[in-house]
Amino acid sequence: MRQDGRSNTSTRQISITTDFMLHANGSALIKFGNTKVICTATVEERVPPFLKGSGRGWITSEYSMLPASTHVRKARESSRGQVEGRTQEIQRLIGRALRSVVNLDLLGERTIWIDCDVIQADGGTRTAAITGGFIALVSCINSMMARGLIKESPINNYIAAVSVGIYNGEEMLDLCYEEDSNAEVDMNIVMTDSNEFIELQGTAEGAPFSDESLKKLIAIGQAGIVGIIGIQKETLGDMNKLVMKWE
Amino acid sequence: MRQDGRSNTSTRQISITTDFMLHANGSALIKFGNTKVICTATVEERVPPFLKGSGRGWITSEYSMLPASTHVRKARESSRGQVEGRTQEIQRLIGRALRSVVNLDLLGERTIWIDCDVIQADGGTRTAAITGGFIALVSCINSMMARGLIKESPINNYIAAVSVGIYNGEEMLDLCYEEDSNAEVDMNIVMTDSNEFIELQGTAEGAPFSDESLKKLIAIGQAGIVGIIGIQKETLGDMNKLVMKWE
Amino acid sequence: MRQDGRSNTSTRQISITTDFMLHANGSALIKFGNTKVICTATVEERVPPFLKGSGRGWITSEYSMLPASTHVRKARESSRGQVEGRTQEIQRLIGRALRSVVNLDLLGERTIWIDCDVIQADGGTRTAAITGGFIALVSCINSMMARGLIKESPINNYIAAVSVGIYNGEEMLDLCYEEDSNAEVDMNIVMTDSNEFIELQGTAEGAPFSDESLKKLIAIGQAGIVGIIGIQKETLGDMNKLVMKWE
Amino acid sequence: MRQDGRSNTSTRQISITTDFMLHANGSALIKFGNTKVICTATVEERVPPFLKGSGRGWITSEYSMLPASTHVRKARESSRGQVEGRTQEIQRLIGRALRSVVNLDLLGERTIWIDCDVIQADGGTRTAAITGGFIALVSCINSMMARGLIKESPINNYIAAVSVGIYNGEEMLDLCYEEDSNAEVDMNIVMTDSNEFIELQGTAEGAPFSDESLKKLIAIGQAGIVGIIGIQKETLGDMNKLVMKWE
Amino acid sequence: MRQDGRSNTSTRQISITTDFMLHANGSALIKFGNTKVICTATVEERVPPFLKGSGRGWITSEYSMLPASTHVRKARESSRGQVEGRTQEIQRLIGRALRSVVNLDLLGERTIWIDCDVIQADGGTRTAAITGGFIALVSCINSMMARGLIKESPINNYIAAVSVGIYNGEEMLDLCYEEDSNAEVDMNIVMTDSNEFIELQGTAEGAPFSDESLKKLIAIGQAGIVGIIGIQKETLGDMNKLVMKWE
Amino acid sequence: MRQDGRSNTSTRQISITTDFMLHANGSALIKFGNTKVICTATVEERVPPFLKGSGRGWITSEYSMLPASTHVRKARESSRGQVEGRTQEIQRLIGRALRSVVNLDLLGERTIWIDCDVIQADGGTRTAAITGGFIALVSCINSMMARGLIKESPINNYIAAVSVGIYNGEEMLDLCYEEDSNAEVDMNIVMTDSNEFIELQGTAEGAPFSDESLKKLIAIGQAGIVGIIGIQKETLGDMNKLVMKWE
Repeated sequence: MRQDGRSNTSTRQISITTDFMLHANGSALIKFGNTKVICTATVEERVPPFLKGSGRGWITSEYSMLPASTHVRKARESSRGQVEGRTQEIQRLIGRALRSVVNLDLLGERTIWIDCDVIQADGGTRTAAITGGFIALVSCINSMMARGLIKESPINNYIAAVSVGIYNGEEMLDLCYEEDSNAEVDMNIVMTDSNEFIELQGTAEGAPFSDESLKKLIAIGQAGIVGIIGIQKETLGDMNKLVMKWE
Repeated sequence: MRQDGRSNTSTRQISITTDFMLHANGSALIKFGNTKVICTATVEERVPPFLKGSGRGWITSEYSMLPASTHVRKARESSRGQVEGRTQEIQRLIGRALRSVVNLDLLGERTIWIDCDVIQADGGTRTAAITGGFIALVSCINSMMARGLIKESPINNYIAAVSVGIYNGEEMLDLCYEEDSNAEVDMNIVMTDSNEFIELQGTAEGAPFSDESLKKLIAIGQAGIVGIIGIQKETLGDMNKLVMKWE
Repeated sequence: MRQDGRSNTSTRQISITTDFMLHANGSALIKFGNTKVICTATVEERVPPFLKGSGRGWITSEYSMLPASTHVRKARESSRGQVEGRTQEIQRLIGRALRSVVNLDLLGERTIWIDCDVIQADGGTRTAAITGGFIALVSCINSMMARGLIKESPINNYIAAVSVGIYNGEEMLDLCYEEDSNAEVDMNIVMTDSNEFIELQGTAEGAPFSDESLKKLIAIGQAGIVGIIGIQKETLGDMNKLVMKWE
Repeated sequence: MRQDGRSNTSTRQISITTDFMLHANGSALIKFGNTKVICTATVEERVPPFLKGSGRGWITSEYSMLPASTHVRKARESSRGQVEGRTQEIQRLIGRALRSVVNLDLLGERTIWIDCDVIQADGGTRTAAITGGFIALVSCINSMMARGLIKESPINNYIAAVSVGIYNGEEMLDLCYEEDSNAEVDMNIVMTDSNEFIELQGTAEGAPFSDESLKKLIAIGQAGIVGIIGIQKETLGDMNKLVMKWE
Repeated sequence: MRQDGRSNTSTRQISITTDFMLHANGSALIKFGNTKVICTATVEERVPPFLKGSGRGWITSEYSMLPASTHVRKARESSRGQVEGRTQEIQRLIGRALRSVVNLDLLGERTIWIDCDVIQADGGTRTAAITGGFIALVSCINSMMARGLIKESPINNYIAAVSVGIYNGEEMLDLCYEEDSNAEVDMNIVMTDSNEFIELQGTAEGAPFSDESLKKLIAIGQAGIVGIIGIQKETLGDMNKLVMKWE
Repeated sequence: MRQDGRSNTSTRQISITTDFMLHANGSALIKFGNTKVICTATVEERVPPFLKGSGRGWITSEYSMLPASTHVRKARESSRGQVEGRTQEIQRLIGRALRSVVNLDLLGERTIWIDCDVIQADGGTRTAAITGGFIALVSCINSMMARGLIKESPINNYIAAVSVGIYNGEEMLDLCYEEDSNAEVDMNIVMTDSNEFIELQGTAEGAPFSDESLKKLIAIGQAGIVGIIGIQKETLGDMNKLVMKWE
């Protein structure tokens, strides 16, 4: 049993609150246990230079942590004058993942900004951000369709993410900070509802890992994703305005 | 009557939730109507260079807005690589105000960081930040006293802030965004529980204002502050751990 | 009596030399005792993005101190790679103040840059900058009218600024550095020739201040402004080319 | 057959030239076909702040591309004033990978800088950098041992990297730029000589990929790594000064 | 005859006002015709890291132009966030030149900052800065000797600078802006009172220049320097406190 | 005799390899003894703002050193976030020198970027960069003519550069690092094939230098340039595609 009583194949308690931000076009507050991330989607009526005149849209993401979200106060990147490497890696990952399930041609020449702001961090912030960012994105797309900005939903699949890892020699799902910071192996998995991979990033923090371990980690992750997409579906059902393309 | 039904001398509904952040030494979520600010206080065991070896402590503040907190998405200062002038003005104001009611000699050589992160903005974010920042500060000080880090509370007065202004030719209290962005005069008042001034900043946005108007604005503001400090007192009472020096 | 023999309600000796810069469209060297500021106004035939196509003009200000202007050499902001918070506060204040007496619609789509460079600092640099910046602005406007760039003067009032404060328990006018750096209360007042307020910024540096003190400070400041605008009027009369709208 | 005549499971021609830099403590010029990277290792007798006094050493990496290394000239990061996200991701990856096969306790309190400068880019620069960086590192360690700076080699395994991907629906090894930039899936694999994983990063560029594909990609990659480590062994044998710990 | 009536071998009118800055340790306002530069020397009781513990001092220089000093307003480097290449070249030149006539061992471990701020620019600002910077430096050194900080003057020669160039096919001395910006060849010469070179920088702006021209330019420059050092000597004589080592 | 056996009037062994970069429009690897610089020329189909609509082209240069090119590892300018003064001076010099032999009107509205990346540094990197940059430029121009982008070669002369200096009291040619870093005088000379000067930059590092020394240095430099241009001519002859205008 893990320190919070979970089994190795269970996630922490996950909850998603939608549309609680007044000004964003879509929003979600997602919690994976003590990890809390505000995800918002905002539409901007222009695209990056490389897409000008193409008729295609773009989805980009920014990620940030409140200074008091971590155990030790984290200096603001705005005060330090630059965005650190870890942040850039994470926001590139979120943007890439969400773009992979959207038909950008159907968006029109506009950008959707997915902002993921970590209010409280206890491990797994990037996977929470992808999972919650997807909900904010769907909510934003739905409101664009309701306003007639786009006719057909450009979203063609669910997407969710979860971490897996090896801690104390055991493969386990959805590591909290305590587990994550002492893990031998740390892996993030992003998958669709068709049980296929969007992104797979595994790192040996201590010793290298075997083929065997890799297989176990992937299996645990795949099962975890199924559960998380289930929660997404419930959430979007609650919204009573899901108009995804494939349904 | 104002657009939300208030009289000219009423604030919006104000609520303060304390200690809802896991890692901060003190925290408060403050709401002035739709304006929501997370205020946290974090202790760092060192001081800025100009205080090294002095035995005195320091209080400093940082202020930021979530990109989706405003009507139009606001670009992150970390992405732009610099903190804008407005932000610097506000965080200098918050730090200066809170320092004015603290005996820094009693803090010891440590810094308390007051982070004010605007989750949602509807006017009056800087006055909400000062008012809520004070609660986070008291909570932080109380926990330091409980842990025996300091013996005597260095806080020697309550402090709260509110905006007043002239909108449509009428002096009024606690302007929301709609009023604030069209106000002829905009003024921020920071006061103590002894009905004295810490800071007074008034700006004619349109036409200059008379002595007469100035007096009315100050009177409305003073009355408003009395009410807000009342709410602070209730909040701190609820915390059941208020050990301020003067009580 | 104050250290330089002045009474509490006197300013230091003020002098203004106009048009002593070869290339600027308007210029003034203003002295408040040992404080010396070069103020220049330069026209640029374009406006910030938010005004493009609006037909309106803009006035903006930049403020800087020579490294050797202060008691201890002040590092250049260009070397440090960023403009500090104090500088931004001051240049925002100067720009806002000067814009408040100009009808920007009459300027046409152009920007007037008001550069205020402190050659020597002895307290009150920001109020000297506003007072001298106004003279540079009028001189610039006059030359634009002489060249036929604009037909009607967009300036609709005089504007001047002065500091007041409480030092050794006494309210006094136009503090020098020695007084200012030890003041209990520090306040900057910007007013028009109609005896109305443009900006009022008061800060308790030590103890909070009472209603009573506030009233005294404002009264002393108002009287001071009347004298300073008198000097501005003489200066502009000397220029023999004053063509302000209201005269 | 692929465009350059290779089979899907072959790498391009790989060659490594060691110690061709006059001033570096270790160096390698590595070529994967037209991709050429200069890898150098330099010792600095100090460590980052978080390791001061720990007795442990550190390995860090920087990665850069010559402007003319790419098809279209790439603007220098020094001119743009910041290091882009992709660069940070790559240099974090290289550093993390090389640290994983080094016993940092045996290094002593010093840092080894692994600089990877891409002279010419034709796909796979990060995997070439890891593979060549390892050779530069070994050469550097050997010279440190020869000089008596360290007694025992801290290196405890070979490490190499290679890319795999799906292009035109087929899984293949070591993609060149043409293949890489049109790949459906792109994956980088870092492994040791014990056939275990250090890092695995797979990304669906177009459609998501199945379990089946993942297995094939990993199998091809593992076989590729075996060959590349063979080339490393020959190179190090040529150097006639390999003194790794485990041999 | 040149546009301002001078012969090809004459400088513009040069004047130097010393010690007109209240706070600097030494200062000079130097004018070469319409070019006006404020030069100040300030002592800082520490040295750059590479000199710590060496017992030697350092002289460094910073150069800046007021925005309104030039024909077209020049954007501040502090606002642009970086110091441009031309500025760096000039301040490196000034520092190098002044260090060349100072025995840094006699300074003690302290830095003298030479700040050169161009109030008005009409060609030759860098040569005016070196010439005036030397006066500020001497004045600073003299005040340090008067205060007993140093016993022996570390200055071992006069130094002055002047520009020469080819304009309309003729070699001439001390070019004004109009001449300089259209010159075929532009050269700056820095020399001592012993008629020897400290620095020589010549650039063909249009066509390359011959040996013949080079000789003429140098001869004109040498003669010009003699005159300028004469003015420096008069200025320092006026100061009535020249205590240079070699006199 | 010098440390490497050369006479005072000899250069080190110079070799130039052309067109060894796959993607650049022109390239040269130039060696002056142990100094090795990769020079590339890349065409960009646009010009800086000040040339837009002028029909003229531009040549600009960037210079950088690999971290391991120097005796002690040199921190990357991209990591430090700014380009240092020395680098800016050098790249301004290279750009200015190469522009001086090109008729920019014949280039059309396009920019040629000359990138000079120092692989290994042993003194004289800037003169090697100019000499090799010229070869890369010619190669680039020739390929543009071959593709019909320009009709007539805009190059109107050869250009080469070399350092001279005084070391141990003797005037000598092409200083290596050991000589350069201890030289009393350091001078860089840039000349054309017509034996005329483009640039001349001499600096007294220790004592000032006399007219006599200046003449000797120039004479040695001129002779050196003749030899270097001879090597350039051979190299360009080898290329078998030299189509310079004047031949």
